[in-house]
Amino acid sequence: MNNESQIRTLIENWAKAVNNKDIESILAHHSADIVMYDLPEPLQSVGIAAYRKTWDLFFEWNKDLGSFKVQDLHITADEHVAFCFSVMKCQGRDKKGEVEELDFRLTVGLKKINSQWKVTHEHHSIPANDPA
Amino acid sequence: MNNESQIRTLIENWAKAVNNKDIESILAHHSADIVMYDLPEPLQSVGIAAYRKTWDLFFEWNKDLGSFKVQDLHITADEHVAFCFSVMKCQGRDKKGEVEELDFRLTVGLKKINSQWKVTHEHHSIPANDPA
Repeated sequence: MNNESQIRTLIENWAKAVNNKDIESILAHHSADIVMYDLPEPLQSVGIAAYRKTWDLFFEWNKDLGSFKVQDLHITADEHVAFCFSVMKCQGRDKKGEVEELDFRLTVGLKKINSQWKVTHEHHSIPANDPA
Repeated sequence: MNNESQIRTLIENWAKAVNNKDIESILAHHSADIVMYDLPEPLQSVGIAAYRKTWDLFFEWNKDLGSFKVQDLHITADEHVAFCFSVMKCQGRDKKGEVEELDFRLTVGLKKINSQWKVTHEHHSIPANDPA
């Protein structure tokens, strides 16, 4: 597999792991020093332990639903550095238990370490309606 | 200059151009097919014309202030592909004209084309308080 295919597979497997709520597989290809800019607060989460914690909040909202979807992945890869981005879809339940859908944006930065691609940066967000 | 220094200079000059409200210099190292995930809506802006337009909204809020600041830039660069990210600060004026400060997150994806680094992806965001 070339670098682009390797990264596509990594991201697809990661999204599958999110849908399976399989935290060990979510973390399987992430580096110890990952910097996460998550959709909810805080502003940033530094390191794999903080990254792991960000998923608690997601699963709390996502509940029984498994609908974390990569819509259109764009990959730019060299031999040792790559980034990719995609518009995403996911679902959760509001306080009444009703299903709500969320469109968001994902950017991922990767580095090849010992011949293996590792995620060193993730950025998830929705547009702010009124930043002020 | 090595790749990392080239990218640091590119980002510093871009931030300087934002502070100078110099739109031509803001666009100087951006590719025609850039995909922008901006802080306010829309979900995505595709292509350089759409990217240029995203700055209108920023300058409308930023007004006379020039305070677009890169706080702590992390760069990962190979020969032809790179990404970088930083926590950022900027200022604008609310409807009463009072200065307000905004902390946000920036991720940038770059590709070397004809020996020149070009920005092909940008992601700006603030955390959502309540994505639901």
